[in-house]
Amino acid sequence: MSALRTYPRFVTVEGGEGAGKTTVLHALREALSAGGDDVVCTREPGGTPLAELIRGLLLDPGHEPAAPDTELLLMFAARAQHVRMTILPALERGAWVVSDRFTDSSYAYQGGGRGIDPARIAALEAAHVGIAPAITLLLDLGVAQGRERARGRDAFPDRIEAEQDAFFERVRRAFLARAQAEPQRVHVIDATRPADVVAEDAVRALTAARGRA
Amino acid sequence: MSALRTYPRFVTVEGGEGAGKTTVLHALREALSAGGDDVVCTREPGGTPLAELIRGLLLDPGHEPAAPDTELLLMFAARAQHVRMTILPALERGAWVVSDRFTDSSYAYQGGGRGIDPARIAALEAAHVGIAPAITLLLDLGVAQGRERARGRDAFPDRIEAEQDAFFERVRRAFLARAQAEPQRVHVIDATRPADVVAEDAVRALTAARGRA
Repeated sequence: MSALRTYPRFVTVEGGEGAGKTTVLHALREALSAGGDDVVCTREPGGTPLAELIRGLLLDPGHEPAAPDTELLLMFAARAQHVRMTILPALERGAWVVSDRFTDSSYAYQGGGRGIDPARIAALEAAHVGIAPAITLLLDLGVAQGRERARGRDAFPDRIEAEQDAFFERVRRAFLARAQAEPQRVHVIDATRPADVVAEDAVRALTAARGRA
Repeated sequence: MSALRTYPRFVTVEGGEGAGKTTVLHALREALSAGGDDVVCTREPGGTPLAELIRGLLLDPGHEPAAPDTELLLMFAARAQHVRMTILPALERGAWVVSDRFTDSSYAYQGGGRGIDPARIAALEAAHVGIAPAITLLLDLGVAQGRERARGRDAFPDRIEAEQDAFFERVRRAFLARAQAEPQRVHVIDATRPADVVAEDAVRALTAARGRA
């Protein structure tokens, strides 16, 4: 991890489907903007026009399925573009950047979910990303409950949402392992509660983390 | 290079624009098929439906330009898919595979052309490609002559074709450095001559290399 530069104003939100990320992202933007700060909200995969096109290749269930290595490299291609074109320019002018997913999701989905060796993910992170958030909010929720919530919303699941429960159990375990390995950075938030309570908790965790920074 | 597995029936054709690759590829296919062997001709970036979509992102001049790291990772994402879906299945059933470009092109265009450290390219090659051709035919031609020939053909140059001469000089030098480092594998063919003479020479080089294998 020593190869990564941590930015104090870089915040990421992670978690599985149905955990209430959207409500949390809106609450974080509002809380940070209230102090008059510049806030850029973005997402992965995506966050630039080219990275959004790569997102389309990754998630469209109509395409030839990507081999695990292809999926991993496409995620990092999108991330490399996102970092250089959107995230770093914003951080370097002093803005907050709040990203819906970042590298933790690669460890969870391609590492935990697809079974790719985390050392191979770390090599890509060191060589082609180079930066890390100071604060990560992990919205944690059981797989069954998350899927139940997501099912009500997505009539047409994307290629990753269409995976089986065992896949999402591995994703959840990988996220929690990241939190256990980096408790200073990753704050686990109980996402079984109503969305507004989860969002309040997320804002509180961000405020506390800022106070310590 | 020790991490790569070399396949005796894997042949690649490399070189800049206007060097006559298409004529050579047809001649190689004909020569190999004449013996009754199964021959798969393919190309990079591309060679599978998903990899061809990645090719579109890489080469379409209408898209947001890819950062050098993004271009590199997209090339390797397409290559990872191409190796797993097209090249390895063909080699493993005993077919010849003749590819219009392969990893040497990444060393030449992203390494030489864009200035990416070759060690970073080698790391991706070892981790995500894992295979190498036994025979590579490098069609070598001065930049001015190659561009002159290509100009007659391409009314709408793609994003890489639109680069300046200095870029293509670096690409050519990087290709020749690859040939110098691996003279057993890479056969340099003088592509200043007429296309049919170049193609005959390429078939002769392939036949000689097979004889030694």
